[in-house]
Amino acid sequence: MDEKKRELSRRDFFRGSCLTAGALTLVAGAPKLTLAAGAAETPPLPWQYVPLDPEIVRKKGHQFYFAGHCAEGAFRAIVDELKINVGEPFTNIPENMFIYAKGGMVGWASLCGAVNGASCAINLVTNEDDSTKLVNELLGWYTQALLPSDTSNQYAVNLEYLVEGKTSAELVQSVSGSILCHSSVTNWCKVSGYASGTAERSERCGRLTGDVAAKAVELLNQHAEGTFQPVFEIPSEAQYCRTCHSKGTDYELGQFTRGKMNCGVCHDPHPIKESCTQCHDPH
Amino acid sequence: MDEKKRELSRRDFFRGSCLTAGALTLVAGAPKLTLAAGAAETPPLPWQYVPLDPEIVRKKGHQFYFAGHCAEGAFRAIVDELKINVGEPFTNIPENMFIYAKGGMVGWASLCGAVNGASCAINLVTNEDDSTKLVNELLGWYTQALLPSDTSNQYAVNLEYLVEGKTSAELVQSVSGSILCHSSVTNWCKVSGYASGTAERSERCGRLTGDVAAKAVELLNQHAEGTFQPVFEIPSEAQYCRTCHSKGTDYELGQFTRGKMNCGVCHDPHPIKESCTQCHDPH
Repeated sequence: MDEKKRELSRRDFFRGSCLTAGALTLVAGAPKLTLAAGAAETPPLPWQYVPLDPEIVRKKGHQFYFAGHCAEGAFRAIVDELKINVGEPFTNIPENMFIYAKGGMVGWASLCGAVNGASCAINLVTNEDDSTKLVNELLGWYTQALLPSDTSNQYAVNLEYLVEGKTSAELVQSVSGSILCHSSVTNWCKVSGYASGTAERSERCGRLTGDVAAKAVELLNQHAEGTFQPVFEIPSEAQYCRTCHSKGTDYELGQFTRGKMNCGVCHDPHPIKESCTQCHDPH
Repeated sequence: MDEKKRELSRRDFFRGSCLTAGALTLVAGAPKLTLAAGAAETPPLPWQYVPLDPEIVRKKGHQFYFAGHCAEGAFRAIVDELKINVGEPFTNIPENMFIYAKGGMVGWASLCGAVNGASCAINLVTNEDDSTKLVNELLGWYTQALLPSDTSNQYAVNLEYLVEGKTSAELVQSVSGSILCHSSVTNWCKVSGYASGTAERSERCGRLTGDVAAKAVELLNQHAEGTFQPVFEIPSEAQYCRTCHSKGTDYELGQFTRGKMNCGVCHDPHPIKESCTQCHDPH
């Protein structure tokens, strides 16, 4: 690395930012402007965790789904309980922070919002290594669980939820096979016979939001008690695909990405190349 | 709704939570425990926004990618500038809050982390309606833009980045066609000839993280100045699919979900049913 060139370019960068015209003048000219990270005035993560009651969180997830959709519902259900049971610094986390992640990102049907919000809550109270393990477990559970859970269905049937749902009927359960909103909702629609714009689908996602938040808390409680044991294993189909298609450095093998869900949820099997059969039977 | 039954069930819920045994005793018995939302001690969203310099944010996004991966990189790049230029309450947002969303959720290759983090930053400073419009625009731009941008490539080539990247070479650009990490990375690998485990792919995602954060700030600046005009349109292929497969109440039409990306990124066209040809030419 040419240190002189780097130093020069950094000076150029500072100068450039101060010369920015118009609306940015005040910002760029502000005396606090530096390239270093801003002073962190809040304690560094992870913050204190105390074991929470998954059933309170499950009910709050359902409740908050109807106030702020899926991602905010799951995130707020956990953080709200931490605000009550721990207090600061959780009280500095604003409500509606995750409202953008609704419907797989403002309705784009990508990542399930409940998973997104609950995972961020896990991340607030665990270091990176533990967060990675617990979030991985939450995602794996989500792809394989029958949702909405029996517990959520019974809360609805017995009118035990904190807000009135779209329906109090027991809802059909489905397995998503994926952490994507698109697959999760579509699979449930196909199994249940309800389209995605129905009150029943909305209620299904409300119950699921509570279930995901409750599962996150169960994992966090196990982690706090030192009893957490991961049980999720990458499905055998995906393991097979990953023998070639993993994160690696071999372009010819197609090492472009790495999935942990069954590839067949989206992809048809591709024709086998000659090079593949050196290791694999044709699939 | 049977109000008496609901009230009874709520009392049961309170009682149930107080009777929870073992590790949850302290939590459930805490005097602050209520079913209402915890007192929000931080100002409600949206928080104050001042126009930021997209080029500072672009460079910080690249810098923070190498400290905390893609999602944290994009989120922190914007929030860090707001900490510096606004201060509280942004200073209460902890670093590493979005570290879990790395690699499409702890390496699950689902939602691009840069998009996740940058969208949350947008959401901090806009109300729900505006956040939805701006995030929608950011996502649409992401699916169609050539990334990494020319600007990011030139910062690298000219050694203007704030941290040393994995390479200072100009990198091949690609269009993701999707907001998923899996598609975005795979498309770039195919175009560039680099596998996903290479230093070049990592650097590509670092530059892209800066680009996404910078784009979010450009949109926020336009919004603050009253000049924001959405330009993203759902691709014609997806519009065609959505004439049947939208969010609706018609199960027979397959109204299960709603996508805004080209369906062909993942799906082959399906055989036409007789009912479809009442409106459509076969596809």
